[in-house]
Amino acid sequence: MKNNTFSHEFFMKKALEQAEIAYLNDEVPVGAVVVCKNQIISKGYNFVEHLTDATAHAEIQAMTSAFSFLGSKYLNNCTLYTTLEPCVMCAGAANLARIDQIVYGADDNKKGFSKHLKLLNPNIKLVSGILIEDCRKILKDFFIEKR
Amino acid sequence: MKNNTFSHEFFMKKALEQAEIAYLNDEVPVGAVVVCKNQIISKGYNFVEHLTDATAHAEIQAMTSAFSFLGSKYLNNCTLYTTLEPCVMCAGAANLARIDQIVYGADDNKKGFSKHLKLLNPNIKLVSGILIEDCRKILKDFFIEKR
Repeated sequence: MKNNTFSHEFFMKKALEQAEIAYLNDEVPVGAVVVCKNQIISKGYNFVEHLTDATAHAEIQAMTSAFSFLGSKYLNNCTLYTTLEPCVMCAGAANLARIDQIVYGADDNKKGFSKHLKLLNPNIKLVSGILIEDCRKILKDFFIEKR
Repeated sequence: MKNNTFSHEFFMKKALEQAEIAYLNDEVPVGAVVVCKNQIISKGYNFVEHLTDATAHAEIQAMTSAFSFLGSKYLNNCTLYTTLEPCVMCAGAANLARIDQIVYGADDNKKGFSKHLKLLNPNIKLVSGILIEDCRKILKDFFIEKR
């Protein structure tokens, strides 16, 4: 999946653009896109402060829009790209959505789902570390600025 | 908390009323309410089919409305009453919401969060089995009818 238009890196850049929008809106900069058959069908960024809702994560925003776009209660054949490792809630949502694949950038050692064994449905393909430095840097810059 | 107006049973009956609305709408009958200082601040029922969104669980509907009602990104001092043991996504959402307590009726041995050890934040108080027979019965009746 490297060096072509529809690489993981290509779609992760689109997720990073969403994270940048979050940053500009003074939200923790996490972004996500949902891709179906090489087409971006939805985008989302962290919207917790704006919505005063601690669950308004980028992945949820993107998946909710994807359900709506497809008119389907499942996201089979879809890939969720997210700049940060999903939390337990978002991984649980991906399970329910029967999403095909999750691709993320930076690890989240504190709140990431992967510290809980067997939480993710084993049918969901998992790729991590895509554009990891860019995905980490935007978060690091945000928190340095906040201090 | 028994035999008084604001017992767990009192609020679980309200959650069951939401499950009944789901049933009438041909949705898997699960209902939830969020209670803050003995006041019901939000209600929700399973809305998966209507929204074509596998994540539109009763608990999420109720918590999303509660954030909005309180204008707060956290649900401190709130209790989530739900007729069915929350799934991983909903338990993850309750963690993020910093909810004070979860009270549920029927167990969900298949999709309930409790099969994943240490998933729920240990600060969240947990009560189960409230009106368990009523909470089970509405689900059983629904699935018998569907067969």
